[in-house]
Amino acid sequence: MQITAHALAEMVSGQLVGDPDVVVSEPAKIEEASQGQITFLANPKYEEYLYNTEASIVLVGRDFEPRSPVQATLIKVDDVYATLGLLLSRFGNGMEAIPGISETAVISGEAEIADDVAVGPYTIVSDGATIGSGVQIYGQVYIGHNVKIGQGTRIYPGVKIYSNCIIGKDCIIHANAVIGSDGFGFTPTEDGGYRKIDQIGNVILEDNVEIGANTAIDRATMGSTVIHAGAKLDNLIQIAHNVEIGENSVIAALSGIAGSTKIGKNTQIGGQVGIAGHLKMEDGLRIQAGSKVNTNPGKENAKLYGYPAIDYVQYLRAYAIFRKLPELQKRLDELEKQIGKDSDE
Amino acid sequence: MQITAHALAEMVSGQLVGDPDVVVSEPAKIEEASQGQITFLANPKYEEYLYNTEASIVLVGRDFEPRSPVQATLIKVDDVYATLGLLLSRFGNGMEAIPGISETAVISGEAEIADDVAVGPYTIVSDGATIGSGVQIYGQVYIGHNVKIGQGTRIYPGVKIYSNCIIGKDCIIHANAVIGSDGFGFTPTEDGGYRKIDQIGNVILEDNVEIGANTAIDRATMGSTVIHAGAKLDNLIQIAHNVEIGENSVIAALSGIAGSTKIGKNTQIGGQVGIAGHLKMEDGLRIQAGSKVNTNPGKENAKLYGYPAIDYVQYLRAYAIFRKLPELQKRLDELEKQIGKDSDE
Amino acid sequence: MQITAHALAEMVSGQLVGDPDVVVSEPAKIEEASQGQITFLANPKYEEYLYNTEASIVLVGRDFEPRSPVQATLIKVDDVYATLGLLLSRFGNGMEAIPGISETAVISGEAEIADDVAVGPYTIVSDGATIGSGVQIYGQVYIGHNVKIGQGTRIYPGVKIYSNCIIGKDCIIHANAVIGSDGFGFTPTEDGGYRKIDQIGNVILEDNVEIGANTAIDRATMGSTVIHAGAKLDNLIQIAHNVEIGENSVIAALSGIAGSTKIGKNTQIGGQVGIAGHLKMEDGLRIQAGSKVNTNPGKENAKLYGYPAIDYVQYLRAYAIFRKLPELQKRLDELEKQIGKDSDE
Repeated sequence: MQITAHALAEMVSGQLVGDPDVVVSEPAKIEEASQGQITFLANPKYEEYLYNTEASIVLVGRDFEPRSPVQATLIKVDDVYATLGLLLSRFGNGMEAIPGISETAVISGEAEIADDVAVGPYTIVSDGATIGSGVQIYGQVYIGHNVKIGQGTRIYPGVKIYSNCIIGKDCIIHANAVIGSDGFGFTPTEDGGYRKIDQIGNVILEDNVEIGANTAIDRATMGSTVIHAGAKLDNLIQIAHNVEIGENSVIAALSGIAGSTKIGKNTQIGGQVGIAGHLKMEDGLRIQAGSKVNTNPGKENAKLYGYPAIDYVQYLRAYAIFRKLPELQKRLDELEKQIGKDSDE
Repeated sequence: MQITAHALAEMVSGQLVGDPDVVVSEPAKIEEASQGQITFLANPKYEEYLYNTEASIVLVGRDFEPRSPVQATLIKVDDVYATLGLLLSRFGNGMEAIPGISETAVISGEAEIADDVAVGPYTIVSDGATIGSGVQIYGQVYIGHNVKIGQGTRIYPGVKIYSNCIIGKDCIIHANAVIGSDGFGFTPTEDGGYRKIDQIGNVILEDNVEIGANTAIDRATMGSTVIHAGAKLDNLIQIAHNVEIGENSVIAALSGIAGSTKIGKNTQIGGQVGIAGHLKMEDGLRIQAGSKVNTNPGKENAKLYGYPAIDYVQYLRAYAIFRKLPELQKRLDELEKQIGKDSDE
Repeated sequence: MQITAHALAEMVSGQLVGDPDVVVSEPAKIEEASQGQITFLANPKYEEYLYNTEASIVLVGRDFEPRSPVQATLIKVDDVYATLGLLLSRFGNGMEAIPGISETAVISGEAEIADDVAVGPYTIVSDGATIGSGVQIYGQVYIGHNVKIGQGTRIYPGVKIYSNCIIGKDCIIHANAVIGSDGFGFTPTEDGGYRKIDQIGNVILEDNVEIGANTAIDRATMGSTVIHAGAKLDNLIQIAHNVEIGENSVIAALSGIAGSTKIGKNTQIGGQVGIAGHLKMEDGLRIQAGSKVNTNPGKENAKLYGYPAIDYVQYLRAYAIFRKLPELQKRLDELEKQIGKDSDE
């Protein structure tokens, strides 16, 4: 995409200060931008870069006034981040799907496929699958029996979706993620081993869900593992059987949610968090990266931290003293000496 | 599958109370079950659901007597969970493999394949591989040179098995798991970099092992990384080179075992546990989720917890006080003041 | 490979003690080696095995003198580990790529491929990709638009590389790793949900980088996520958008680095470590497995441990007292009693 400052300012309803004819071809960060690139200044702590940037265009806030001369053309907008987001979406990640169904895709005669989908090479679509309008499936994807995929969803290379799972509209599933693998369920046998409990449920992703690369979401034993609308899951996350993740909740990489736990809405879970099984968590929780949660805080919007997780501030305060425990111990030793006590430990 | 209460009761040697002709087509949880479904009551805390369930059939214990009227037909059995397991196995996860060898599978002329196997589309079977009777390999699987796969094993889409690995009988390997990737071994070079140590060993999965989605098991430097019979590994687990996992041990998701460590038999390892390298762990350990173990407890059946892991109860007791360290500190301050001491900190 | 002790001694400039005509076909560990195998003795604590080994040849240090009779032929070398590494490299992991381009690979007419590459079955190479000399790409790999792969690089089955990423020379990428998936970036919307921020940057792996199985490296929002030359990443690692990993740094499995953090050179990061976003870490850090780092230690070669991570020795000392907090509390109770204080807690 090549665009002039003039055309761009019109597109984003911005006010142009500088050369209207300068042309840019891609966005870049202000500290790295060069000629022919457009950048942005939203956080005042980066303002110094503005006066030396080689970028051809800089997006700034509507009220921004430079303190020194600026070489670049400025475009003043109401919401710098929102405008940047709009610009980025014009470029995308370069993964344009080839339209149509690849000759080498294996499509069951009993699958139902909308007219305008893309299905890449070496993808397998099994009996009874339903692929909605505008769906983009890249190469080397596996779609099991009776899987339903809602319109506008994008499924990157190598994703494997087991039978009977249901994917909503406008979802994104990144490469090599696995949806619908068996839940981890076994019963002990008399000889000290384990017998597998078959997992006959499925996984439901509601609309606007994003799933990261190499993430695994297990099917329910019975019923459904459910990722509710608008939830965003990062890479390498484990979601166990019968879990539910509430609407618009966000989970960072390498976290794991154990079986049958329900996470509320609008929850923010940091990376490498673990949450024990069979919990019902309130809405609006914020869980610090690395925390291991094994009880329900019992109130909304709680902030958790620790191993096991407790109140965020309580953990911070306790840890501040933990760091100087040797000193505390010494003071205690000293006191005991002073009051002439023969300690019996 | 559709089945009458009468036929079902016969199948599971149960005692029928209610309508013998009612028909069910699938199992469900008691709090979610509807007409045409069969559910179960094993845990007394769910008993209230029994009196309102819309399920057509409920499995209950042999001695169970309802306190109120029940609409559903009851089938009384000796072991509710075992009977449920039997029922679930009649349904499975819906991933029926297409029998026979797909035309698009690439099978080396030098591989040895039993007559009754299933090999899905776009699967690669390399020179010298041996595939036993009844093995089901789904699509997009990679089987390296000289890999041996024992009878009855099931390998889901996207699994990659590097050369020379040996998979036992009746194993299950879930989608996108990797078996036999190189162990992580390097020697420092004089210029501050690293030179790779080639990893020429293999991985052995003994019989009845289950491996979760996206789990990675590295080949040994020399010799074998071994997962002994009956061990069950969840999703996203890392098993490093030369590790051994004992018989009937169970490991939950996102755990990692570092190089050359030997885990005993009948060990239960929670999620996100880390175990350091070169340890030899006793049998029967139970390790709390999130623990990082860097010493051998030195006795069987120990229960570990913490970072680093110590005795389970010891950690719980210490953490209970950790939470109120600010209070402890205040008491210490107070004492020092009272005995008139000028603290020199 | 079959080789005589005589030929081997010449190859490694070693001094032969014993039968020059004995033949070996593979290496093994000294406690497991049998006839026809070569093993090594580098660590004196394994010396006892030397006197009973069935190995045909044992590599030992130049100055080593056995205290008892040895059946095996000895080859004395200057550096046992280096010599072993040389031997191992003669065997490799058995994953010989089939030379040439598979008929079933989908290669865009607009890709540029050197003459001597291997491309396995069901691999996809997209428009604008450039594959350098001697590159080995196994089956079921996805190479996106405009991806560049430097000479001598080896890409194992199932790896997915998104568009515009750049892979250096002599890299190794293990099975089912994902390079270039979207960074995890969203902006809150007024209705409590999130809008995706498109991720238009890429990933750059410089030369001699190794990436483990099922590891995920996200593309930058703008600009590049960079893994600098010689860095080695283990399995199941998460590298977020815009991260940089310094030269010759090593990261063990299941670790995660959050967005925009820069890791220095020659850093050693243990397994399951988490590092928060937007940090700039010094060179030469050593981070204990399981640590969660959320501040920059502010000096090179620091050693970190804890949750959150603090100085390694400080954490160890504090944890030693943490373990006996119940005892500390009891001593405090005792003191308070002794000085006749009515505690007001």
